[in-house]
Amino acid sequence: MTLPRKDLFEIPEGVIYLDGNSLGLLPKGTQAKVATVLSDQWGQQLIRAWNSAGWMDLPQKVGDRIGAILGAPAGSIATGDTLSIKVFQALASALKMRPDRKVILSDAGNFPTDLYMAQGLAGLIGGYELRTVSHDEMADHITDDVAVVMLTHVDYRSGRMYDMDDITRRAHDAGAVMLWDLAHSAGAVPVDLTASGAEFAVGCTYKYFNGGPGAPAFIYVRPDIVTEVKPALSGWLGHDAPFAMEPAYRPAMSTERMRVGTPPIVQLAILDHALDIWDDVDMGELRAASVDLCELFIREVENRCPELELASPREAALRGSQVSFLFEQGYAVVQALIDRGVIGDFRAPGIMRFGFTPLYLGREDVIRAAEILEEVIRDKIWQDPKYQIVSRVT
Amino acid sequence: MTLPRKDLFEIPEGVIYLDGNSLGLLPKGTQAKVATVLSDQWGQQLIRAWNSAGWMDLPQKVGDRIGAILGAPAGSIATGDTLSIKVFQALASALKMRPDRKVILSDAGNFPTDLYMAQGLAGLIGGYELRTVSHDEMADHITDDVAVVMLTHVDYRSGRMYDMDDITRRAHDAGAVMLWDLAHSAGAVPVDLTASGAEFAVGCTYKYFNGGPGAPAFIYVRPDIVTEVKPALSGWLGHDAPFAMEPAYRPAMSTERMRVGTPPIVQLAILDHALDIWDDVDMGELRAASVDLCELFIREVENRCPELELASPREAALRGSQVSFLFEQGYAVVQALIDRGVIGDFRAPGIMRFGFTPLYLGREDVIRAAEILEEVIRDKIWQDPKYQIVSRVT
Repeated sequence: MTLPRKDLFEIPEGVIYLDGNSLGLLPKGTQAKVATVLSDQWGQQLIRAWNSAGWMDLPQKVGDRIGAILGAPAGSIATGDTLSIKVFQALASALKMRPDRKVILSDAGNFPTDLYMAQGLAGLIGGYELRTVSHDEMADHITDDVAVVMLTHVDYRSGRMYDMDDITRRAHDAGAVMLWDLAHSAGAVPVDLTASGAEFAVGCTYKYFNGGPGAPAFIYVRPDIVTEVKPALSGWLGHDAPFAMEPAYRPAMSTERMRVGTPPIVQLAILDHALDIWDDVDMGELRAASVDLCELFIREVENRCPELELASPREAALRGSQVSFLFEQGYAVVQALIDRGVIGDFRAPGIMRFGFTPLYLGREDVIRAAEILEEVIRDKIWQDPKYQIVSRVT
Repeated sequence: MTLPRKDLFEIPEGVIYLDGNSLGLLPKGTQAKVATVLSDQWGQQLIRAWNSAGWMDLPQKVGDRIGAILGAPAGSIATGDTLSIKVFQALASALKMRPDRKVILSDAGNFPTDLYMAQGLAGLIGGYELRTVSHDEMADHITDDVAVVMLTHVDYRSGRMYDMDDITRRAHDAGAVMLWDLAHSAGAVPVDLTASGAEFAVGCTYKYFNGGPGAPAFIYVRPDIVTEVKPALSGWLGHDAPFAMEPAYRPAMSTERMRVGTPPIVQLAILDHALDIWDDVDMGELRAASVDLCELFIREVENRCPELELASPREAALRGSQVSFLFEQGYAVVQALIDRGVIGDFRAPGIMRFGFTPLYLGREDVIRAAEILEEVIRDKIWQDPKYQIVSRVT
């Protein structure tokens, strides 16, 4: 498709949305899709809809659509739960695959929930060390005592991207299992899970996939190992015969074993609709457009606002689809920008994040956003006391 | 309110719905509520809606509404995830509270996912025994080697109900932690969690609460122990300061520590709407109506269909809000009933389940359902080959 395709989304009047890396836009037609699920399926078919409306198969259908975007074969991705839960599932399974090793290696700047879930798992089973090092030190720390390397492909603050193939190869050379968190990659940059050879990947769908607030997460398991993978969260819908009501858990012979409880049908249906857009997206074209928008933004902002320090890699190949700038008063600047229709977000300490989503952003949006940022900085608009009040979420 | 209140629900033409114990009806006004969440909140407010539309506080708000129905104080119930996940959280926390004990005691007829999750947890941490006994043997098996007694209050097949206060007292007398699964109790029978003294309770909301397919689950933690409870699923939204992005997990000082990942906002909003109905429900009146409907159904069916064997307790006080009958060809009978607008369901082996929801069922529905069941049995309609084909879900 020719990018951007603004006509596919509801875009609020006067808004330049640079926060699709946090919550994507509402795809047009979502309302009608949900109306069908509520009125025709739930309301009329009721319990029968699990069969008649395909609810039972919806998690797998959606997983296959995500897989098609991420280079994962049909049947290798399960959907549901939250990304935190999927991190736990993948990590617990990975540790069981390397019983003699007691180290989980991750990035000290990883998104907190990934580290927290690892800490909770380690506390639960005992005897494990969560070892965190910086991006630059990572390659040197993939040693033969590491059970699993757990990394977020694109850093949530800086947008810095790991070389997925290289790191995975290093993990395997050291005998470790590789787990990628694709939260800021899925729908943002080209990913080929099969080519990477990684055992596990997880991700969320409310960012670049536009699945809506609280959209279900996903987990990938490399097909050749799936029958060896022991699910720690062994729920009935991951059972090989959920409705046989057997007393003992017996995992499904596919990635379906990573399903846990009853799937969130309404949220899955919204996501399924949002994924329609991706049938016509070429990830190479999307990436080229993303790089162009990011480069343009960096150039424009650096020319206009010398006070701001680029907090993302300058080289496009090392960056995801976001650009971050460091500014001590970044929180207040972001509030002032939002007040002027430019929605980015802030992550402590001092990071202003701007996500670029070529599906609904064009060059004119990027230039206008840079102009408004220039005004806020030049005229010290951020000094207004109203922008200093810290609310819970930005 | 005067029961039933059929005007509050969408009821398909010609349907008598006796499966509210599996998936409740669609409350009227759900469509409009969801339209607001999609168009006004997600569509227009976008990421700001986490604050401006109250998304961040929605899980707790919904938890407090559920608590008000279950005798749980404000702040003691967290919502989100699935019931399977909540079982895991409660069980993992309970085991950590009794480190010297290695037995999880449950009912051999417990709903499979509860047993499966316990098996998965035991397999993950090692050294634990899941001991299952029958309902009748339960009291005698609550011994001082038991770490946690994990029971479903109302049995999903028979509707048989445990004496919550008695069993909890026995568990505590033996030094064990008590965990109740309220899947078939919440909104079905009076429950007073505070009076019971139980440490943990979990439940789902798509049955008697009418929260829709895949509605979020809930978990109760007794307020006096919450700060001792170690979350095994330590996600960022259970952190004391989620947006401080601290490297180490530090649990919230309330039941909020049982939150894990990003909440399913659309499903929570649907549930929030469904709970409006409960503001005016008196659980004593609801229970009286439920007992009346169940007794009437038993009497009518036993008079009309001597071939069927009651598989629920005859005494109302020992029964939840469902009535089950055993019949070898139960699966085919249920299919024939569904074809005639009477929707119940089937659980292997041979159990036909009929749920009674006084919010939307009256005595006339019960009598009509019994008449149709009589026809199906008397005329051997179930022998029709089309009713013998087993589909995946009933």
